[in-house]
Amino acid sequence: MIKVGIVGGTGYTGVELLRLLAVHPDVELTAITSRKEDGLPVADMFPSLRGRVHLAFSSPDKADLRQCDVVFFATPHGVAMAQAPELLAAGVKVIDLAADFRIKDRAVFEQWYKIEHTCPGLLEEAAYGLAELNRDAISKARLVANPGCYPTTMQLGYYPLLKAGVIDAAGLIADCKSGVSGAGRKAEIGTLFSESSDNFKAYGVAGHRHTPETVAQLQKFTSAPVELVFTPHLVPMIRGMHSTLYGRLTRDISNEELQALFEEQYKDSAFVDVMPFGSHPETRSTRGSNMLRLALHRPGNGRTVIVLVVQDNLVKGASGQAVQCMNLMFGLAENTGLTQIALLP
Amino acid sequence: MIKVGIVGGTGYTGVELLRLLAVHPDVELTAITSRKEDGLPVADMFPSLRGRVHLAFSSPDKADLRQCDVVFFATPHGVAMAQAPELLAAGVKVIDLAADFRIKDRAVFEQWYKIEHTCPGLLEEAAYGLAELNRDAISKARLVANPGCYPTTMQLGYYPLLKAGVIDAAGLIADCKSGVSGAGRKAEIGTLFSESSDNFKAYGVAGHRHTPETVAQLQKFTSAPVELVFTPHLVPMIRGMHSTLYGRLTRDISNEELQALFEEQYKDSAFVDVMPFGSHPETRSTRGSNMLRLALHRPGNGRTVIVLVVQDNLVKGASGQAVQCMNLMFGLAENTGLTQIALLP
Amino acid sequence: MIKVGIVGGTGYTGVELLRLLAVHPDVELTAITSRKEDGLPVADMFPSLRGRVHLAFSSPDKADLRQCDVVFFATPHGVAMAQAPELLAAGVKVIDLAADFRIKDRAVFEQWYKIEHTCPGLLEEAAYGLAELNRDAISKARLVANPGCYPTTMQLGYYPLLKAGVIDAAGLIADCKSGVSGAGRKAEIGTLFSESSDNFKAYGVAGHRHTPETVAQLQKFTSAPVELVFTPHLVPMIRGMHSTLYGRLTRDISNEELQALFEEQYKDSAFVDVMPFGSHPETRSTRGSNMLRLALHRPGNGRTVIVLVVQDNLVKGASGQAVQCMNLMFGLAENTGLTQIALLP
Amino acid sequence: MIKVGIVGGTGYTGVELLRLLAVHPDVELTAITSRKEDGLPVADMFPSLRGRVHLAFSSPDKADLRQCDVVFFATPHGVAMAQAPELLAAGVKVIDLAADFRIKDRAVFEQWYKIEHTCPGLLEEAAYGLAELNRDAISKARLVANPGCYPTTMQLGYYPLLKAGVIDAAGLIADCKSGVSGAGRKAEIGTLFSESSDNFKAYGVAGHRHTPETVAQLQKFTSAPVELVFTPHLVPMIRGMHSTLYGRLTRDISNEELQALFEEQYKDSAFVDVMPFGSHPETRSTRGSNMLRLALHRPGNGRTVIVLVVQDNLVKGASGQAVQCMNLMFGLAENTGLTQIALLP
Repeated sequence: MIKVGIVGGTGYTGVELLRLLAVHPDVELTAITSRKEDGLPVADMFPSLRGRVHLAFSSPDKADLRQCDVVFFATPHGVAMAQAPELLAAGVKVIDLAADFRIKDRAVFEQWYKIEHTCPGLLEEAAYGLAELNRDAISKARLVANPGCYPTTMQLGYYPLLKAGVIDAAGLIADCKSGVSGAGRKAEIGTLFSESSDNFKAYGVAGHRHTPETVAQLQKFTSAPVELVFTPHLVPMIRGMHSTLYGRLTRDISNEELQALFEEQYKDSAFVDVMPFGSHPETRSTRGSNMLRLALHRPGNGRTVIVLVVQDNLVKGASGQAVQCMNLMFGLAENTGLTQIALLP
Repeated sequence: MIKVGIVGGTGYTGVELLRLLAVHPDVELTAITSRKEDGLPVADMFPSLRGRVHLAFSSPDKADLRQCDVVFFATPHGVAMAQAPELLAAGVKVIDLAADFRIKDRAVFEQWYKIEHTCPGLLEEAAYGLAELNRDAISKARLVANPGCYPTTMQLGYYPLLKAGVIDAAGLIADCKSGVSGAGRKAEIGTLFSESSDNFKAYGVAGHRHTPETVAQLQKFTSAPVELVFTPHLVPMIRGMHSTLYGRLTRDISNEELQALFEEQYKDSAFVDVMPFGSHPETRSTRGSNMLRLALHRPGNGRTVIVLVVQDNLVKGASGQAVQCMNLMFGLAENTGLTQIALLP
Repeated sequence: MIKVGIVGGTGYTGVELLRLLAVHPDVELTAITSRKEDGLPVADMFPSLRGRVHLAFSSPDKADLRQCDVVFFATPHGVAMAQAPELLAAGVKVIDLAADFRIKDRAVFEQWYKIEHTCPGLLEEAAYGLAELNRDAISKARLVANPGCYPTTMQLGYYPLLKAGVIDAAGLIADCKSGVSGAGRKAEIGTLFSESSDNFKAYGVAGHRHTPETVAQLQKFTSAPVELVFTPHLVPMIRGMHSTLYGRLTRDISNEELQALFEEQYKDSAFVDVMPFGSHPETRSTRGSNMLRLALHRPGNGRTVIVLVVQDNLVKGASGQAVQCMNLMFGLAENTGLTQIALLP
Repeated sequence: MIKVGIVGGTGYTGVELLRLLAVHPDVELTAITSRKEDGLPVADMFPSLRGRVHLAFSSPDKADLRQCDVVFFATPHGVAMAQAPELLAAGVKVIDLAADFRIKDRAVFEQWYKIEHTCPGLLEEAAYGLAELNRDAISKARLVANPGCYPTTMQLGYYPLLKAGVIDAAGLIADCKSGVSGAGRKAEIGTLFSESSDNFKAYGVAGHRHTPETVAQLQKFTSAPVELVFTPHLVPMIRGMHSTLYGRLTRDISNEELQALFEEQYKDSAFVDVMPFGSHPETRSTRGSNMLRLALHRPGNGRTVIVLVVQDNLVKGASGQAVQCMNLMFGLAENTGLTQIALLP
């Protein structure tokens, strides 16, 4: 059994890790930390876990995470970089669900996240945890940077097109929509029910932290300079992410060829479902599951190709993807413990 | 492997059966019928099942359900009674999620459901599928009447109090609230998003079909005449049911004794969670799981005891409970395939 | 024109006052205070008011509210009692939307609200602002205590029955449901979208501050001792309140007579709509309007009468009712500026 | 008083017309037709109108609409074209909220709407009812084609940019999102609460009827050939529309100049609110009001300009815009009866 520790278990990615790991056949939940909730049984905060998770939160000072085989950081940005070196030195693998190790360029990280990077020496080593495109590196890694939710959809949606060189890398427009849980479990007015329900808006249009992460990754897929306009929106739903990705075709290509690019690319990826050309994937078809579904469109058979991508932002977009990485890091089948079927309706 | 057939797989209880049975370790999905959707792959209607359920709907005329070990009826009232006799005669067990066999008194059934009962001879034999209170009969049954969603909460909530004789059986008030999925997957204006969202109302206050079912069952628990006022309401949420049950105490009893009645009654019931006295269970703590949670209150330590009961109306209130019955009927552990943890948030 | 000041304009009752008063034909919005938002144009916080409200928030220290004819307090409990004496002395009328003057018994107030009452001398003078039952006192008042949202529904629903002496005053059960906006515009985890959406729960069952207010008022309607069980619940909708009121009939009475009690009582009340016997009022039929709608039921023609009451908690339950009081205090027609039709769908 | 008739009053645009017209100072509601609901008081179907609208539905056969001064068609496509000629001949003005007269090119209409146009002779005469861009023609018209909801946002958002020639007319991408009420009040499974809530999806990506209408109108603003990719999405909210409009700048232009194009264009338009550059308009800021709000963005000061446009799809996107046209047609101030402030929260 893999001994698992979770740092920062009181947020949504934390409780989602608990939901997944509590039924994972190869995992033993060993420690979960929260400075504020020291001593509180986890199931008292999250009654969905009553009878299923018997751990209590413990203060980071008391918890000896070095006894774990792997530690997940479901924390705000900046926490993992402070604790990872010691854990790695003790032989513990680390998976960070925040952004600390996602961006290789320290200056870019510091510019967007407004904090100093305290262990830049680990940036190079950290594997980027997008299993579908980086499986080997993750399998060998002791430190994984779990991708952001939006970047997951943009990379998996644009990758086959950029790799094949059929769209203009400098003309990418990603119009993305996220459920409110993406904002986290924080006491804020903007995400109150009475503010977010029955409402729709864009946010962060001038610049969102997921832009540099995505551009850096997309740039790996092509030699042409990538330019991306990324527009996030807030949807009045709890879970779910829908990315509408626009690309300008740069050469003649049939719809069948476009479709084949995706089917070929993802034929061995258990968690990427390439739907028939012209489908309209719904976010709820992934609710609570680790599946990402996508479908291609080409309005009027014109110059624009559209990739519609959906996922559950808390599963494939966060905690499920992290468990997927853990499976690879410990030599398990990639889908172990991740076979939940989406809740519909 | 248990060969399972489903009649009427296009509704919400049908797709929920599929979600649960597709991961049940002892089940082989064998047939699913729909007259209207003959030939359509199930996953084309419910994309959440893509890659997981490979069956297509077949016309009832073509499907040979007699090859199954058990057949679930996820159909409107009246369908099971027409097909059950032939299946039972062929040695197939039957679980009806509709009301055909819930009410033993044929006249009462016909009065409330406005249809003639075509096989009253099976009414006596049918086991009422509330496992927590009727485990033995279900285990031996070849025909099970799965309880209604509201009646499940009312029976499990009132049972310990009535059995102990501490409340006035003639003064029961059940103020119940259901998510919209309880109304089924039918094209109707009243349950459109634009009608049901951001809205709350009572319905069927003058008389709801779940009243006679519940009264008949509650009457088994006590010799005093049961009188029940049952008021259903519609909540703008997809899944979830919350019953607020009021009882007038008829004798001195401490809160500790009240709590003990419930803890003792349900100590071996895996799917009934008796929360600490004074808790406020939330429907979401059961979303997608087969758990029913309840908690006791006594405002001002007065004469009124309140039982708050929550469940997912599609799981413990319908399809999960039906699978629970199947497990008992086939000698499996009662919770086989039913260990999903609720989706929170 | 009536010069109006608002203290505490950044909450939901504040912005709702602004929506109503900005189109009131006899009102001139003169000052709106917020210590925290001093200098911020109101429309920058609430873009729905762009082009319609040109005031900016001003610090309470700077705003001279004594120049107003009337000041509304849309503040937390305790603020109005601190400022009312000075304003009243300056000849300014005061309407408090919080609880400071709702409960005449100082000890009861202090027990439930956990703050000391700093001007108990005004308790006796303050008129209770439920216009339908207290029109004369409000018309003559210089200080009005606007009722709580739940108490409004319970009083208007129970009044005709208690006054006629046809129900047992000691057996009242009020099962009430409120939209989330009732919790106010405060940064709290419990009312986040991801916590409240697709969820239903009871809260405060052991004791809610609206109980003593309601009991004290109901007791005025009858000489029999009132006992009330009040159970509030949270509904995943922004606005709306639905109270399901149960009463045990104490004598023979026909449904027609019951209905007549209500129609007679409210025949001159523009904002109380007595629907036909057996109707199911929906909260959305009052969304954004000052209407309260109610309907009677009597399940099985038995001993229990049910009153279903709906209103918009922010309008008739708060700001609309306050404007209704202002109209009376200034000799205007009671419905001036309050003729908005509910938004449906 | 203007005598108003409404054909097809049982849908959402119908009840919204009633909400607006019932408080319009110059209107007398004279007739409202529904074949199916003949004789039913309007307020029995829409309880929000109880006490405010005293009309009953009447069969089209009985209602003499020729006594009206103006008739609104809140009907499915094809109804207005059948009845308009007779009404116009009788001197009655006609406003069609459906598509019958929106598209001047009969062949294009018939291709997209799959019905034969039965009075093509009126196509040329019909004024396109987008008051902000076509005020004069509407003022003189006896027949008005009220614009589609999506086209309203796309035209008002793109107009200043196309007119000034600063974006590539052949590279327009409109990523649009609508609340569910846009699908109408029809008994359909796809828009049930349990299907649409907590879910997000695109629809009609291959081709939507609002594309030809919009392209034809946009083409009037520029001599360059217009090419538009229009992607509609369904948002789990009742009302509201958010269009995210992308344009590629074709020449150097400052953000201040871009902003000035919009402020200058709409400085006299009471219902278009040009927000400060970089704002994020929310749909709820227009809920229930006739306002359309928009804001400009330019990510990274690059080559792409984004216009964010919001409106209430049932008001400015349908019934409110129709009343706005009526005001112009009868020489009233354009905002008469349309001064409702949006409901927030």
